[in-house]
Amino acid sequence: MSEVIQKATLARNAAPQLAALSTGRKNEALHRMADALLQHAPSLIDANAADLARGRETGLSVSLLDRLALNEKRIEAMAEGLRLIAGLPDPVGESLQSFSRPNGLRIEKVRVPLGVIGIIYEARPNVTVDAAGLCFKTGNAVVLRGGSAALESNKRIAAILHEALQALGLPADVVQVIESTDRASADEMLKLNGYIDVLIPRGGASLIQNVVKNATVPVIETGAGICHTYIDDSANPEMAQNIALNAKVQRPSVCNAMETLLVHEAYAERELARLAAAFRAANVELRGCSRTLALVPDMKPAADSDWDTEYNDYILNVRVVAGLDEALAHISAHGTKHSECIVTENDEHAVRFLNEVDAAAVYHNASTRFTDGFEFGFGAEIGISTQKLHARGPMGLPELTSYKYKIAGSGQIRS
Amino acid sequence: MSEVIQKATLARNAAPQLAALSTGRKNEALHRMADALLQHAPSLIDANAADLARGRETGLSVSLLDRLALNEKRIEAMAEGLRLIAGLPDPVGESLQSFSRPNGLRIEKVRVPLGVIGIIYEARPNVTVDAAGLCFKTGNAVVLRGGSAALESNKRIAAILHEALQALGLPADVVQVIESTDRASADEMLKLNGYIDVLIPRGGASLIQNVVKNATVPVIETGAGICHTYIDDSANPEMAQNIALNAKVQRPSVCNAMETLLVHEAYAERELARLAAAFRAANVELRGCSRTLALVPDMKPAADSDWDTEYNDYILNVRVVAGLDEALAHISAHGTKHSECIVTENDEHAVRFLNEVDAAAVYHNASTRFTDGFEFGFGAEIGISTQKLHARGPMGLPELTSYKYKIAGSGQIRS
Repeated sequence: MSEVIQKATLARNAAPQLAALSTGRKNEALHRMADALLQHAPSLIDANAADLARGRETGLSVSLLDRLALNEKRIEAMAEGLRLIAGLPDPVGESLQSFSRPNGLRIEKVRVPLGVIGIIYEARPNVTVDAAGLCFKTGNAVVLRGGSAALESNKRIAAILHEALQALGLPADVVQVIESTDRASADEMLKLNGYIDVLIPRGGASLIQNVVKNATVPVIETGAGICHTYIDDSANPEMAQNIALNAKVQRPSVCNAMETLLVHEAYAERELARLAAAFRAANVELRGCSRTLALVPDMKPAADSDWDTEYNDYILNVRVVAGLDEALAHISAHGTKHSECIVTENDEHAVRFLNEVDAAAVYHNASTRFTDGFEFGFGAEIGISTQKLHARGPMGLPELTSYKYKIAGSGQIRS
Repeated sequence: MSEVIQKATLARNAAPQLAALSTGRKNEALHRMADALLQHAPSLIDANAADLARGRETGLSVSLLDRLALNEKRIEAMAEGLRLIAGLPDPVGESLQSFSRPNGLRIEKVRVPLGVIGIIYEARPNVTVDAAGLCFKTGNAVVLRGGSAALESNKRIAAILHEALQALGLPADVVQVIESTDRASADEMLKLNGYIDVLIPRGGASLIQNVVKNATVPVIETGAGICHTYIDDSANPEMAQNIALNAKVQRPSVCNAMETLLVHEAYAERELARLAAAFRAANVELRGCSRTLALVPDMKPAADSDWDTEYNDYILNVRVVAGLDEALAHISAHGTKHSECIVTENDEHAVRFLNEVDAAAVYHNASTRFTDGFEFGFGAEIGISTQKLHARGPMGLPELTSYKYKIAGSGQIRS
């Protein structure tokens, strides 16, 4: 039996015990896990040092090494994350609907855990703690398959979390870390119907696409964000510049950052040169369409593929459009249904944009950077869903649950 | 370009127009479609006669021919189904949540259509009308890929619905019937990410499993029902017999009918002989475990595979169990997460059963036959979901929608 099947079986078998735990007991466990992370911080930093050493040998980039690195402060943040999850309302057991039928049947729709969640992700070890905490709070067992770069850190985190659970007499099997980090172990998880109820990939576009294209287990697609900001003719120039700059440079590496700026042709005539200068002052490389280049000549032309590229970097495509319709068509052709923004003082245009753009979050006069569980007030999230089935946008605790119907009768039969 | 891609593209392009239609306009169209079906009933019956003739030639069973056959009464029922859908509340545009953030952002969570729904199904032509109506009301374009047996009927239905839509100046492209009924056309739909947002298979277990195992488009798994009734020691014998008989014989061919009866050992000692006689009187073939055979000898022994078989017929497995725990373990091992029932006067056992059984609908003292959109009071349904992602149990109109977040700002940027 492979490691993946063995551990998925352990998770599956332990899941019902976890599903039945009270909120108080789950919160107690989350705090205990947080305590254990702090207590074992030195050994976790040691394990992480081994990952970092191997990473340097294998030539990981400075930015990847930075994302991989753990120190006391980062471990404190991981522990604090678990305590925040403990503080959130428990969705499990919530009564979503309750009614009686004319024949006397009483029907209640109640939130229940999904069961076993599989997470396939890349380097950052904080995802291990985060995902384990979110799944635990929602009564779901979790099978975590991280990348090879963080293997020693992830193994150590699993051991720490298991110790915390065992100390409370709780089933440690509900958190499983897969240690085989070859492609085969991920591929095996994709087909584990009957063991894993839902897969959530977290990472770059190629990781996510591999899961979406090959999984037979239901998947929640997250994270790919080719987000646009459209500046309409009537936009307030100061507001437009603030929103566009914020969407690009406040944190370019994340999925809700802007990749392409669309500008109304009349607005472009008046403002594009100034706008381009502001982006350059913020170290953003610009790539323009032919009309953009005509207005701001010293710029690289955008290649066809650039419009479909998620840079996650200080690079921005700029396109001049004839108006709202062309902006909507561009977003429909190149967007990833994540977050899209219009800056306009024209309410009719704003309403059309909010109605017609097919994306998880559609903004009028605000930065796309707000698509985030904390910014929406939902608290911690497992990712931003870009699909339309099950959940869309920030996926917090309720989005990690399903429901069932409980029906109480007194002998009713169907005639 | 293949027929499937061509028609899916037409559906995709027409979907935004449909999504923007008012409720009144959609209801008007549904009534117009119903009128058109009645008006064109003779030509539809002719087309159906061609299907029936081919079915007889190719040796379709009498029961399949019956399911395929259309007559005036059945066409009236199809039209009436569309009118019922017109009468249901429109979920699209419903505000699910609305709140402001401390920074002044106003966030509204609004129901929207899923986009393009693909339905892969078998013989019955009423599914074509039904699915088209449900998808239309929820603002979704639909790509319908029925079986070869009903091809002429389905083509004629599509033509009738298109005529009705065109007469109102509405985009007929939102209803597409695929005419290639070979395996390749179904397989092509399974991989049509970017064109089709969700696939819903309707039909037998092998059709559904093919879709689940091979689709890369998100799937809602429906219909497979290996449902159990567990009669506990304390059950009221008259109620238990009524519920068990109803669950099996009121309509054996459907997914919420019972396939296996589990009986507490003490109850079996007292009542199993009488219960078996009642099932036999209703023409049900019984297949028992060894303990069942010891109590009611003249019975075929159940083979291992019988416990995992959805008969949809007058056949019932019977197993004597030591008590609730063994019943729960059996259901966990052999159930399909559809509908499960306990008959008991012991409230503690009822609560445990309702909490611990992982299924869409869990019953105490009522027949599993009630798992149905109409019986729940939801109205028409597209199927019974047996998965946990997105929707579980009867899938009515709201379950054919997604949502998006509309965010109204006044220049907010993230710091």
